[in-house]
Amino acid sequence: VATDAWQRLQPKLTELADLSSAIGLLGWDEHVMMPPKGSERRARSSSTLQTLYHSRLSDPELGTLIDELQGDTSLDDVQAATARVLKREYDRATKIPKELVRAIAEVSTRAFHVWQQAKEESDFQLFEPQLEEVVRLKKEEADAIGWEGERYDAALDNFEPDAKTVEVEALFTQLLEELQPVAATILDAAGPRPDLFSINPEPDKQLTFCRWLVARIGFDMEAGRLDLTSHPFSIGVGPGDVRQTIWRNPASLIDTVSSAMHESGHALYDQGMPEEWRDLPIADAPSMGMHESQSRLWENHVGRSRPFAEFVLPHLKEHFGTELGMTTPEDLHRGANHVERTLIRTQADEVTYNLHIGLRFELELALFRDELKVADLPDAWDAGMEKHLGIRPANHTEGVLQDMHWSTAYLGYFPTYTLGTLYAAALFEKAQADLGGFDDEVRKGDCSRLLGWLRDKVHSQGWKYSAADLSRNILGEELSVAPFIRHIKTRYGELYGVSFG
Amino acid sequence: VATDAWQRLQPKLTELADLSSAIGLLGWDEHVMMPPKGSERRARSSSTLQTLYHSRLSDPELGTLIDELQGDTSLDDVQAATARVLKREYDRATKIPKELVRAIAEVSTRAFHVWQQAKEESDFQLFEPQLEEVVRLKKEEADAIGWEGERYDAALDNFEPDAKTVEVEALFTQLLEELQPVAATILDAAGPRPDLFSINPEPDKQLTFCRWLVARIGFDMEAGRLDLTSHPFSIGVGPGDVRQTIWRNPASLIDTVSSAMHESGHALYDQGMPEEWRDLPIADAPSMGMHESQSRLWENHVGRSRPFAEFVLPHLKEHFGTELGMTTPEDLHRGANHVERTLIRTQADEVTYNLHIGLRFELELALFRDELKVADLPDAWDAGMEKHLGIRPANHTEGVLQDMHWSTAYLGYFPTYTLGTLYAAALFEKAQADLGGFDDEVRKGDCSRLLGWLRDKVHSQGWKYSAADLSRNILGEELSVAPFIRHIKTRYGELYGVSFG
Repeated sequence: VATDAWQRLQPKLTELADLSSAIGLLGWDEHVMMPPKGSERRARSSSTLQTLYHSRLSDPELGTLIDELQGDTSLDDVQAATARVLKREYDRATKIPKELVRAIAEVSTRAFHVWQQAKEESDFQLFEPQLEEVVRLKKEEADAIGWEGERYDAALDNFEPDAKTVEVEALFTQLLEELQPVAATILDAAGPRPDLFSINPEPDKQLTFCRWLVARIGFDMEAGRLDLTSHPFSIGVGPGDVRQTIWRNPASLIDTVSSAMHESGHALYDQGMPEEWRDLPIADAPSMGMHESQSRLWENHVGRSRPFAEFVLPHLKEHFGTELGMTTPEDLHRGANHVERTLIRTQADEVTYNLHIGLRFELELALFRDELKVADLPDAWDAGMEKHLGIRPANHTEGVLQDMHWSTAYLGYFPTYTLGTLYAAALFEKAQADLGGFDDEVRKGDCSRLLGWLRDKVHSQGWKYSAADLSRNILGEELSVAPFIRHIKTRYGELYGVSFG
Repeated sequence: VATDAWQRLQPKLTELADLSSAIGLLGWDEHVMMPPKGSERRARSSSTLQTLYHSRLSDPELGTLIDELQGDTSLDDVQAATARVLKREYDRATKIPKELVRAIAEVSTRAFHVWQQAKEESDFQLFEPQLEEVVRLKKEEADAIGWEGERYDAALDNFEPDAKTVEVEALFTQLLEELQPVAATILDAAGPRPDLFSINPEPDKQLTFCRWLVARIGFDMEAGRLDLTSHPFSIGVGPGDVRQTIWRNPASLIDTVSSAMHESGHALYDQGMPEEWRDLPIADAPSMGMHESQSRLWENHVGRSRPFAEFVLPHLKEHFGTELGMTTPEDLHRGANHVERTLIRTQADEVTYNLHIGLRFELELALFRDELKVADLPDAWDAGMEKHLGIRPANHTEGVLQDMHWSTAYLGYFPTYTLGTLYAAALFEKAQADLGGFDDEVRKGDCSRLLGWLRDKVHSQGWKYSAADLSRNILGEELSVAPFIRHIKTRYGELYGVSFG
């Protein structure tokens, strides 16, 4: 509907989209291409563009337009969703005082550097004052944004819009309760890590293979790139320009392939945003959890499946030659799904991964609820690892200091990993039911029907609905832990020949 | 001197520098990294940033500050030069009406696309109306900016600030007069093109070699990159981030190496800008001609010299192996300096290159002086080629339509190539005199004393002086054609065993 306010909104959306693309590109380049000595100017240049973006987003003229749209009942559903998302972004841009935004940006930069050193030296006390400051400012930010249930709602809402702590906590409680005994059975049955795929071919050769692989599963290389980095990520620079970066584990070729499958999940999502929404803020995922659902789905449900092992192994052998020897799809499947108690989240398998997240969520909640002091975090961490994983870190490097999230003020982010896991399992189960299964296709490397289903049900919906609403629309029910638990029981029951009580 | 106006100027300069870095990066990425489908958003995003840059540069508040600085006699020389350059940029940003800026931008985009098709089809009439429009608008722009001597001064000033047509024309007249008979003698003596280096190794292998080579001659790889593109260029994204892109000729390895030497000249210049001027507009070359002097110097005076051939050949053989067979430094030197009458400027050798430029300069002058109609350009071109080169193109693809410059409204650019040639020869001769020669060092791949001299005399001066003033400061005399003519006579006299009357 071409209302007057909608028309006047368009150039503002265009400018925001253009600035956002530029900010995205500067970030991608910084991590993938920029020479080291360019970092100082880049940091400032990015910050200048972000300031411009913020000033445009908090422009009172935009606020007036949004108010006009909010009250307009003649808008179609895309316009109404746009108005809703814009209102949210505008409120966040205007409610948080500029000084607080600057203080958080400053402490993040500083805390990140101190964290790096603290992690290297396993010295929590070095990091403690920085983290104190981060937690204090993030609480202040939560209060500035406002919340109804509890303060953590506002932190969560940064990454998982509209999610409520009480609901997420209930999911975690149930998940951990059901997962613990299942994981224990699996861990008892799992043997030592198979090392058949511990090879490390030339980086360029791995890159070529991964580029071929992601194109095969549906990533449009004319509308994106894939490059190597040390900290993998995926970013939509703009329509027709989605860039994934992957990690190469020198100790395991499987990890490189898994990294490509994971990032492809994110990247396929971004490539699937509706063409006609290109300048609208709803051309985005409704939450980090929903975004993560796509990466988990492609990495774990597709990439670590038995049919996929049958598809990919001959291609791995063809590309990397004799190094892969006489390995069988069964070897690859076992290697890709090895389960083990480990200290490090990012190296955790699919079964234990969410136990790591459970610990972090508990600690964040306790910090936000003033039930835990930053100074007591290391002890709480070690005790939590004992409780959830049954192991204790020998030092803080492998313990409380392992993740960068808190140092960069990403409090409220961790639970989205688990929400992503749960969404992924539920969506995959639903896709299988709707499509009558597709194992035979995947065995031939054909993921087109699955991708079509995801395009239709998830990607093309953008941020028209909240993640919970989108999920309910697709699944016909509330998100639950059941599909994930079923998936774990099925896969590892078959793999290790165990049954679950 | 920390005057009040100077202090208030700093945040404005910072923002301009940051926006400029972002614009530069978007441009580099577009040509080197961007997936094809990202072009639409990129074009718009770049244009949005350029609009922001223009609005900041034409901000009346900035104008007031510049006026205050202009009248302030307490400024030191860096501050005074900054005020002078800013005044120039501000005037250009405010004197040209916005509608004219937009009209030129629009016709450039359109004309470029039409030119591509016209060139492919050798159809000048297709391109003619677009070029008519370009010429008309560029004359309008010249009048808006203002000029004293003649209208072409303003076009020239876009690329060669402070240069006057009458002076440049005098240089060209003398150059062509002296070069013609010398070139004729050389062309008569030159045999057919040697094809010893017509090999085309894997692109990655050529890239690796060129990266090694440019680092060896002094390019700091921690503060820059080198990549392959089809249309080579070099760009300073910001301090510590200078990116060169080079061209790979599948028909000649020498061209790839020459491309790297050429772009390194530009890139070393940018890397040599004073650290402490990083946000000032004087951290730039004073003109395109002076910038080109550095690329010509490294490409032709160093890269195509006999000592350099002795240095580089063993490394070429080591890197590319048996493909280079039993070639000698003499073979390489002959191959790198083969002289021939050709139709295409970009493939022309050092001797005939400036004859191509002479033709273009004459035609641009005639267009600006209303002595030539766009419709008559093809005939004038062909006649000019006959006059300057002694050959006639068989079609417009290899004739009047070969260069993209006019389609992108780069009228006034061509003469800077020849000015660059003349500056290069004069500076190289002066460096040799000041340093007592350095052939033995170059023979070992050590260019450090030469680079040090250029850093001191040229790079570190930035845009503190106009190109002509800078050159006069260094040479102790006005720029003349003599050093270039001496260079050509010496090099080709030795190479072909001829003497010049």
